[in-house]
Amino acid sequence: MNVGDLKAGKQEYLAVGFQATNIGRAIELIQRMKKEKATVFFSFTANMVASGLRGLFAEMCKRKFVDAIITTGGSLDHDLIRAKMDYGIGDFTMNDSELHKKGVNRLGNILIKNECYEFLEKEITKVFEKIYDDERTTSPSTIAKEIGNSISDKGSFLYWCSKNKIPVFSPGITDSAIGLQTYFFKQRYADFGIDVTKDMKQLADIVLNADKTGGIVLGGGISKHHTIGVNLLRGGLDYAVYVTTASPWDGSLSGARTQEAVSWGKIAEQAKHVTVDCDATIAFPLIMKKFLK
Amino acid sequence: MNVGDLKAGKQEYLAVGFQATNIGRAIELIQRMKKEKATVFFSFTANMVASGLRGLFAEMCKRKFVDAIITTGGSLDHDLIRAKMDYGIGDFTMNDSELHKKGVNRLGNILIKNECYEFLEKEITKVFEKIYDDERTTSPSTIAKEIGNSISDKGSFLYWCSKNKIPVFSPGITDSAIGLQTYFFKQRYADFGIDVTKDMKQLADIVLNADKTGGIVLGGGISKHHTIGVNLLRGGLDYAVYVTTASPWDGSLSGARTQEAVSWGKIAEQAKHVTVDCDATIAFPLIMKKFLK
Amino acid sequence: MNVGDLKAGKQEYLAVGFQATNIGRAIELIQRMKKEKATVFFSFTANMVASGLRGLFAEMCKRKFVDAIITTGGSLDHDLIRAKMDYGIGDFTMNDSELHKKGVNRLGNILIKNECYEFLEKEITKVFEKIYDDERTTSPSTIAKEIGNSISDKGSFLYWCSKNKIPVFSPGITDSAIGLQTYFFKQRYADFGIDVTKDMKQLADIVLNADKTGGIVLGGGISKHHTIGVNLLRGGLDYAVYVTTASPWDGSLSGARTQEAVSWGKIAEQAKHVTVDCDATIAFPLIMKKFLK
Amino acid sequence: MNVGDLKAGKQEYLAVGFQATNIGRAIELIQRMKKEKATVFFSFTANMVASGLRGLFAEMCKRKFVDAIITTGGSLDHDLIRAKMDYGIGDFTMNDSELHKKGVNRLGNILIKNECYEFLEKEITKVFEKIYDDERTTSPSTIAKEIGNSISDKGSFLYWCSKNKIPVFSPGITDSAIGLQTYFFKQRYADFGIDVTKDMKQLADIVLNADKTGGIVLGGGISKHHTIGVNLLRGGLDYAVYVTTASPWDGSLSGARTQEAVSWGKIAEQAKHVTVDCDATIAFPLIMKKFLK
Repeated sequence: MNVGDLKAGKQEYLAVGFQATNIGRAIELIQRMKKEKATVFFSFTANMVASGLRGLFAEMCKRKFVDAIITTGGSLDHDLIRAKMDYGIGDFTMNDSELHKKGVNRLGNILIKNECYEFLEKEITKVFEKIYDDERTTSPSTIAKEIGNSISDKGSFLYWCSKNKIPVFSPGITDSAIGLQTYFFKQRYADFGIDVTKDMKQLADIVLNADKTGGIVLGGGISKHHTIGVNLLRGGLDYAVYVTTASPWDGSLSGARTQEAVSWGKIAEQAKHVTVDCDATIAFPLIMKKFLK
Repeated sequence: MNVGDLKAGKQEYLAVGFQATNIGRAIELIQRMKKEKATVFFSFTANMVASGLRGLFAEMCKRKFVDAIITTGGSLDHDLIRAKMDYGIGDFTMNDSELHKKGVNRLGNILIKNECYEFLEKEITKVFEKIYDDERTTSPSTIAKEIGNSISDKGSFLYWCSKNKIPVFSPGITDSAIGLQTYFFKQRYADFGIDVTKDMKQLADIVLNADKTGGIVLGGGISKHHTIGVNLLRGGLDYAVYVTTASPWDGSLSGARTQEAVSWGKIAEQAKHVTVDCDATIAFPLIMKKFLK
Repeated sequence: MNVGDLKAGKQEYLAVGFQATNIGRAIELIQRMKKEKATVFFSFTANMVASGLRGLFAEMCKRKFVDAIITTGGSLDHDLIRAKMDYGIGDFTMNDSELHKKGVNRLGNILIKNECYEFLEKEITKVFEKIYDDERTTSPSTIAKEIGNSISDKGSFLYWCSKNKIPVFSPGITDSAIGLQTYFFKQRYADFGIDVTKDMKQLADIVLNADKTGGIVLGGGISKHHTIGVNLLRGGLDYAVYVTTASPWDGSLSGARTQEAVSWGKIAEQAKHVTVDCDATIAFPLIMKKFLK
Repeated sequence: MNVGDLKAGKQEYLAVGFQATNIGRAIELIQRMKKEKATVFFSFTANMVASGLRGLFAEMCKRKFVDAIITTGGSLDHDLIRAKMDYGIGDFTMNDSELHKKGVNRLGNILIKNECYEFLEKEITKVFEKIYDDERTTSPSTIAKEIGNSISDKGSFLYWCSKNKIPVFSPGITDSAIGLQTYFFKQRYADFGIDVTKDMKQLADIVLNADKTGGIVLGGGISKHHTIGVNLLRGGLDYAVYVTTASPWDGSLSGARTQEAVSWGKIAEQAKHVTVDCDATIAFPLIMKKFLK
């Protein structure tokens, strides 16, 4: 506790108060993760890959800033599509029936044409066919890797993950446009399958072989929980930075603050951790600006 | 638009304004779903199964009020554990380091002893062994069914789903305590696997064979998206009730209002839909009280 | 701390978890306030008087359930108007430009015609004239009392407050339609004024003469702070129930949990207090149902 | 509607999506306000003056970036205290009973010693005495001006407002530490008073004499409503930027988006307006960085 001088902080954000202070703490914790060469798990939700954060994520993967990614199937969808197609900016209050008639899908204030998903269908079928040649039953991380291999856009995070051998885990992969395509693909190749237990050993090995682990967790849901949940195997994360807009008062995992994870041993008792309550499109570039100069 | 009399609503909640009105609309929409014999998809997050809502969910399944469930692996965890073990009530602001030392895990203001997970480990291993005898590669819905078969507690939703042949889909099942146990189970039975694509056909068939579909969606994440996403196959849900505490302003799927799904065709243009902005532990019993007399 | 049986709660809500538990605690605390004959301060925001809660507030005042009210000028606006005029129910997503063209004002999903404010203008002018005959410089509580005296609608909380001598404090009264009317009224009666310091002694006396005090605080803003702030004079409230949808993470008074007020001595260290995170149109009728049978 | 290239935005934030886009729009709207020489109303809540934003507000007033300020009494409290005393940075989860025992008040994650309020008591008494010599019944704007005159700290916004004749309106002034001091001051000077109607004419004149008006509204409550409410007199604001963390779903004024104000004529139909959903300590420095180079 420091009942000191609000103006005397060493770093600009720390001394401001409220969530600006937490931006400052997030920067400090990530600095420590990197200084101590912690194995860094990075999780985020699909909407962020539909936003301008995609380029930032790609840059992080290009620089090997993180060691493993845990995300949803939708993140793979958007990364693959945007390697070739553009999304637009609209507004949160557009008329969704009219948009539907025009073949435009709204994701918050981002607009995605139906053509994008037609493109995805073609591309992912090629990826599935390539995988099917190798193995009948594959894993989410293999699909992510092969998507990355199929992309030439340097603004893609999957491109860089494949290049730099950063594994991308997506335990809920069937819940996505890609996942829906497995339904159609299996109509032709009935024995094609995705065994999600295949990735557990690889992920567990990363956790168990790490000296220190850090988590950078943007948003909630399955990606967030998988990141902290697997760290149970080693007694919890040593560093954790959450960026979220969700509320803890409904007991949801998405809204749970870092403290709650301490009771579970998903974040270690002695860990340093902070929850930044802010939309990641604002908070995360501010944080990463300190690292990606 | 009705610039009429606030006091003249036919049903108590509708006339109150703000979210009370939306409680009223949710009741109306579920009445219509049932009246029109819509195939009802029911999705919820794991924290709710850790709460007193579990009994309500069980009652709904007992009465075959819903036709398919889509939920996370954690819901299976909690339902299985609570068939034998009790959870406690604590507080959102408890000291999580002290709780960890005492072997107590905090989920919002609900407390879960470590013994609960030791119990889960034993039980789920038996379930896995039973499944493994039948098939080397299983599906999430099979695991859910077999857990239900193993339970004798009539307060369990899985018990009633198994009894009443209500399929339970859990596309992200490895992200759970049960999922973590697959890692250990595979150390003995290396060829055990969970092929998540197996459930896609069964789920798609339910969607494609339905005359009308309705969604009751509590909370967000993968369960929410899978429910609306699969309804794309038939042009969207005809009725949708969301209950959420998440905010739409960050473009997250969890916070997206029903409107947004209309642009995607996940909810039909002509559908009736409402988003109730409230913790489900308060809102959902109020809604279901009208149906489970 | 009770790591006991989630199902064993004595009272239904307490045993449910998350915000349902807090509903249960709110009921318990209000039971204790009443049992110990605490002086009960009741604060709420104007939007609630525009909703169906107005009738509930009136019933509480009729039964002298509370001893003092602290609210905004807008609450006086809506209570006065609705004594004669009806509001309608619309939707949160209506086209506001179209509504404006039609002379309809939207308050969340409640609709208020311009005629309502024309009515208010006439009525409040009469009230001001009556007051002006008595005193050139008046107080917010006097205005509230005289509005109550002018109303014959038994669904009005001001009607019952005037009848039952429950003082209504409104420290920010000029920020309201009534307040705006003082601007026009003073064009004719230049020496008319509202001295807000006049109410401080009456309010302080209530606080200082109380054996025990309790606060029922719905929503945030000036009404919330004034309720807890004036209780500083006696070392803080003995009981406090907040019902809010605001977030504490931005350091706002509106979002601050009851705990924060303990550090200030606005709620006593040994006080019982709970924050219910829920829209008051849902939560407050649930709570009051236990008292207004 | 622009179904264009997410990457092709002219300005960095606009092209990012979600709330980053709204940061970009806020910058554009403020640029237009300034370009068209709109009369700019600036409103904020007291917690922000307790934070590092105080210095930013002071800089804005120094440069006459805004023409009128509308804020709460607490903003005057914090600005006066911090002219001499320092606040500290703590944490949102500190033990509030312990803090109270130590004489430390918590405001989110900002810490304020009791001495600060002892200092305020002395200083405001001097200010009241000076005012009392001039007039028995004063106004909130006069109090704000005299506080500004009493301060020599160039990091104070009131200092610069007094220097630059920027009026500071505080319609709810008695709800503050300063307001509580009027209770004690009147024990000695019984005829001291604050007539809040006095400020209505000055504020209305600013509104009525403006060619164009813009509102920069941080947070909610009385300050927000007073800013938009008084602009009713001229048919609404021409530009409005809200920065908020509050939710619209409960019908609260604090959570209402800019759209809602259009229905009331508080923001003009043809106005440009945006709501940035973010903690002001993060969002507002990002916005103002474009103007205060």
